[in-house]
Amino acid sequence: MRIGLLTGGGDCPGLNAAIRAVVKRGLGEYGHSIIGFRNGWKGVAEGDVMPLTRNDIRGVLDTGGTLLGTARFHPHSADGGLDAVRATLEAERIEALICIGGDGTLHAASKVAETGTKIVAIPKTIDNDVAGTDRSIGFDTAVHIATEAIDRIHTTAESHNRVMVVELMGRSAGWIAVQAGIAGGAEVVLTPEEPFDIDRITRYLKHRHRAHASFSIVVVAEGAVPAEGTSMEWETKYGTFGEIVSGAVSERVAEEIAARTGFDTRVTVLGHVQRGGTPLPSDRILGSRFGVAAVDALQQGHTGVMTALRGEEVVLVPLEEVAGRAKPVPAELIQVANALA
Amino acid sequence: MRIGLLTGGGDCPGLNAAIRAVVKRGLGEYGHSIIGFRNGWKGVAEGDVMPLTRNDIRGVLDTGGTLLGTARFHPHSADGGLDAVRATLEAERIEALICIGGDGTLHAASKVAETGTKIVAIPKTIDNDVAGTDRSIGFDTAVHIATEAIDRIHTTAESHNRVMVVELMGRSAGWIAVQAGIAGGAEVVLTPEEPFDIDRITRYLKHRHRAHASFSIVVVAEGAVPAEGTSMEWETKYGTFGEIVSGAVSERVAEEIAARTGFDTRVTVLGHVQRGGTPLPSDRILGSRFGVAAVDALQQGHTGVMTALRGEEVVLVPLEEVAGRAKPVPAELIQVANALA
Amino acid sequence: MRIGLLTGGGDCPGLNAAIRAVVKRGLGEYGHSIIGFRNGWKGVAEGDVMPLTRNDIRGVLDTGGTLLGTARFHPHSADGGLDAVRATLEAERIEALICIGGDGTLHAASKVAETGTKIVAIPKTIDNDVAGTDRSIGFDTAVHIATEAIDRIHTTAESHNRVMVVELMGRSAGWIAVQAGIAGGAEVVLTPEEPFDIDRITRYLKHRHRAHASFSIVVVAEGAVPAEGTSMEWETKYGTFGEIVSGAVSERVAEEIAARTGFDTRVTVLGHVQRGGTPLPSDRILGSRFGVAAVDALQQGHTGVMTALRGEEVVLVPLEEVAGRAKPVPAELIQVANALA
Amino acid sequence: MRIGLLTGGGDCPGLNAAIRAVVKRGLGEYGHSIIGFRNGWKGVAEGDVMPLTRNDIRGVLDTGGTLLGTARFHPHSADGGLDAVRATLEAERIEALICIGGDGTLHAASKVAETGTKIVAIPKTIDNDVAGTDRSIGFDTAVHIATEAIDRIHTTAESHNRVMVVELMGRSAGWIAVQAGIAGGAEVVLTPEEPFDIDRITRYLKHRHRAHASFSIVVVAEGAVPAEGTSMEWETKYGTFGEIVSGAVSERVAEEIAARTGFDTRVTVLGHVQRGGTPLPSDRILGSRFGVAAVDALQQGHTGVMTALRGEEVVLVPLEEVAGRAKPVPAELIQVANALA
Repeated sequence: MRIGLLTGGGDCPGLNAAIRAVVKRGLGEYGHSIIGFRNGWKGVAEGDVMPLTRNDIRGVLDTGGTLLGTARFHPHSADGGLDAVRATLEAERIEALICIGGDGTLHAASKVAETGTKIVAIPKTIDNDVAGTDRSIGFDTAVHIATEAIDRIHTTAESHNRVMVVELMGRSAGWIAVQAGIAGGAEVVLTPEEPFDIDRITRYLKHRHRAHASFSIVVVAEGAVPAEGTSMEWETKYGTFGEIVSGAVSERVAEEIAARTGFDTRVTVLGHVQRGGTPLPSDRILGSRFGVAAVDALQQGHTGVMTALRGEEVVLVPLEEVAGRAKPVPAELIQVANALA
Repeated sequence: MRIGLLTGGGDCPGLNAAIRAVVKRGLGEYGHSIIGFRNGWKGVAEGDVMPLTRNDIRGVLDTGGTLLGTARFHPHSADGGLDAVRATLEAERIEALICIGGDGTLHAASKVAETGTKIVAIPKTIDNDVAGTDRSIGFDTAVHIATEAIDRIHTTAESHNRVMVVELMGRSAGWIAVQAGIAGGAEVVLTPEEPFDIDRITRYLKHRHRAHASFSIVVVAEGAVPAEGTSMEWETKYGTFGEIVSGAVSERVAEEIAARTGFDTRVTVLGHVQRGGTPLPSDRILGSRFGVAAVDALQQGHTGVMTALRGEEVVLVPLEEVAGRAKPVPAELIQVANALA
Repeated sequence: MRIGLLTGGGDCPGLNAAIRAVVKRGLGEYGHSIIGFRNGWKGVAEGDVMPLTRNDIRGVLDTGGTLLGTARFHPHSADGGLDAVRATLEAERIEALICIGGDGTLHAASKVAETGTKIVAIPKTIDNDVAGTDRSIGFDTAVHIATEAIDRIHTTAESHNRVMVVELMGRSAGWIAVQAGIAGGAEVVLTPEEPFDIDRITRYLKHRHRAHASFSIVVVAEGAVPAEGTSMEWETKYGTFGEIVSGAVSERVAEEIAARTGFDTRVTVLGHVQRGGTPLPSDRILGSRFGVAAVDALQQGHTGVMTALRGEEVVLVPLEEVAGRAKPVPAELIQVANALA
Repeated sequence: MRIGLLTGGGDCPGLNAAIRAVVKRGLGEYGHSIIGFRNGWKGVAEGDVMPLTRNDIRGVLDTGGTLLGTARFHPHSADGGLDAVRATLEAERIEALICIGGDGTLHAASKVAETGTKIVAIPKTIDNDVAGTDRSIGFDTAVHIATEAIDRIHTTAESHNRVMVVELMGRSAGWIAVQAGIAGGAEVVLTPEEPFDIDRITRYLKHRHRAHASFSIVVVAEGAVPAEGTSMEWETKYGTFGEIVSGAVSERVAEEIAARTGFDTRVTVLGHVQRGGTPLPSDRILGSRFGVAAVDALQQGHTGVMTALRGEEVVLVPLEEVAGRAKPVPAELIQVANALA
């Protein structure tokens, strides 16, 4: 079989583990040809191919990023995009496609699958908001990096008696914020799931600093918003992607806290480091398992499905049940974050 | 309520997160008294108490080990052990007990629960072999440390054209070996679950070194054994605990490989570092969630249960379904390890 | 002897190692009393004391920040500041003072020494710009954190074909930028020592991207400025402290690069994480050696001196030779950074 | 110029940074050809060449090991070794040689230099015992890995009330043991420089455990030996290399401690992980500086010299002043280790 392979959307740690697994399983076990496309769907549309051999995947297991490159390009949104994809797949005699990506890539995958192409998708996103799977590739490493940053900021907060506001990724879901908030022992965690009341927060911080502590950590997901009718207005309207300005909400939150409490308040916007570097073992393992499972799924005749982690098992779920749906942070996790603040 | 709290068995990262969560939830939310016992069941038998306040849990979230201390002591195996436990619980007016531990501690917990004491258990073990839960506290960090060691040994293996044998923990189950083996890209992974054939392994290594590589990593769980009837005999008989000598099997395996292949072969026994140091976020989060859940379970009147992770949820499972049962590595994971070698 | 001890200026990793060493050496070897002051010179002026015992320094060797707290307060700049310091030292019967700090603290130390107080100083600053010593406490760890961030950003730059601009600390000297730039393999490093020409930089980036690479890392010290007469104007005038706005120069540099090259260009401002977290061994060792040396220096009757690292030795240098002088990055290091770009 | 390049002896982190710098500086700045030899002097003797291009050094800055491979082979000790080296250098028209290595490689370099070959050497050794330079490539990373291990073992020691004996590398000098011992807060540090008295050590441990602590860390360099006339005999005689058996001394020390104190005592032999993995920034920087300096030295006509770090400067020292001389740990460092125990 000639299997096409692409990585789309933002890069993250663990992608190379998945690429390696697809090549090792597809080429090594079944003798398939694995044809990589550069830069996600863009490379498919443009016919930018990179046939993958054992040599290409040597030494990549513990590296971040994606050796195939990636881009934020959606063929179904671009003029003639789906036709260009179709043309390349025919020209390259691709019999099936493995797509590694987040919400946008999965949505494109389901559109392309509708045109008759055999497709198996693999979920990756540091935001962990892909539905149908307990975890996506890249999330655990992002939480680790964010937690490490909070640990570091903790010692400064304590030494200087400061309120430190830390902005983490998460436009539509607060997974990183909640998990890194629990792991880093944050006093306040603001997420898109639960619009916040700045008055309640500053009252809590004042109470805490009076009672027993002289510093606090406030973790803010970049998509956090104030609740309607609370005293902090927030003029900007957000869409799902792209319009959120990095640093905007945390700067505003810090100003409000400083103004209401008088505490020395500082902001850190963690930014791009959250998606880079050496993947944690769990992301290497997840990428490896999903890569093997995707090739096996094609071998067994599956199409229009996504590999997913459910408890300790890797299963297949229909793409249509998944694409376009988000996965909010469960109430229990948010409750733990609040209970331990 | 007066709640007793203990940590038993080998120490691991994430215990302090659980202790902190029990104190914050129990004392902060419900106003319970949390009475710690030093050094596991030994401290209960001896009446060695340490009432826990908010001060005791300050700054412990990101620390390894257990602030309560621990010991390998099983009251039901010691003369008069259960009576001593009973006496202390009465003297201290303990109304319920939260026990954090692995197989031995859980077994003791179920024995003590039979005497009428209210008990909720929290599973911890770097070996991840407690049944009924996807993960136990400490496992993820142990896999991380083991993988980091393999990554390091990898560069030496490659620079010197060596076979490096790495012995990891795991007496009755090969969880660390399999996960760190996949994450570290090991060529061979030997586990207690699958007795090995040294001839097959050395044939594979010779083939690999002839074909394309000049080095290999062989990961060995300390409880790995050769299959009956294969050419490597293994005189020692192992019990479940304690009789396995650290380094024994890896030294033997290395000798056999060197003798049959002529390759420069070296051994590293990773040992105690696998249970120490800063917990990964996932172990801090698991400890935090289990700690909150254990207190809530007592509050709701549960007893004789263990907190457990199932997919994305924390649930309660009856202790009797869990104690004494092991949890072997699933076939799919072992298959991934083999597929990617 | 009653020895006062304070940490001043920004916090950094390795301070607790120095505090621990002062207590262990002073109290344990010579039987001195060690009287800590909270929050730097502010605590001296306000008489905010914290007598230090062996218990206070237990478990702090590998922790960031300072257990004494710190503040940016200079007694010689505050009304009646020196008198208040003097009054506290008398009231507490302090016979000598050990001051751990950067340029500001050392300057204050030399002023207080002039009033007759016995003083030994210990240099700390993540910026490494204290004269007279090869290294100050905190620098190596800051370089490590900055390098790790560049490593992470590297994989994203490569996966997305981007120019990544990374702003690191360094207002008056580019030590962190140059060392992390070399260690992280940055293509361009901008420092306060060498005003930059944005045209030359963008020509180089265009050449590089045409020739063989599709991504670049540009490291910018926060005190970097464009050279006079070059095409990028820079209205703001900087003083030595405080007026530099975090992120300002890197945002401008990124805009100019994007405008002139058309490359997708992103900014990361690393910020506070550079001063936090677990100290590297070299900072724990430097803090330990300086702490022991400072107590020994007082014991031997020295005053008005600073502990310093020179090659492999710890020596004492007169405070007056050091205070107020900066230490620029040597030309050889900058040349290596450029040679390897 | 055609410059030969080799890495000899044990591998360590930072070698690839030096190789990269030699190629970038030699090829990029001066247009030289850089001819790598595989596996150290063995590759020179066997004519095993690998011409190095920019492509070969892409992405290697942050990797451990050596892309050239290495071996413990000394041409002056092998029959016809120097002649074979000479023959290869002529056949490959090598005009100068850059040798990266430790004591053995430097000794070989001085022998080969005597035959008229232009040679510049670069010191590397995790043991840091090369004379003439403050630091050798690989040492800082080894100390970091060893310290991290001690940090991890610390939490286990404390949780279980144990004496943990940790064996670190260092056959003829105790650099790693002393620095990691200080950084990790070890109670006892045994080095080759100072033969130990087991009675004094066990008395100290008993005193400590009675007084205030219930655990201890004992760091042992693998070349540590008991002092003559003390109660612990040590039959084995050691040479400078090779005859020391890994784990031997630490096992004996642990047995003696357990027998005399009754404390639960465990051994960890850290082994090969000390030389592997991602180099710390300081080793990447040192490798980069030495690589640039070595090429520049050849360009300026130097031969028979070694690059060296002295304080903040890179200088050249004559090979004859260096080869065959060891560099013991200075007394001040050992004193700090003891003072803070």
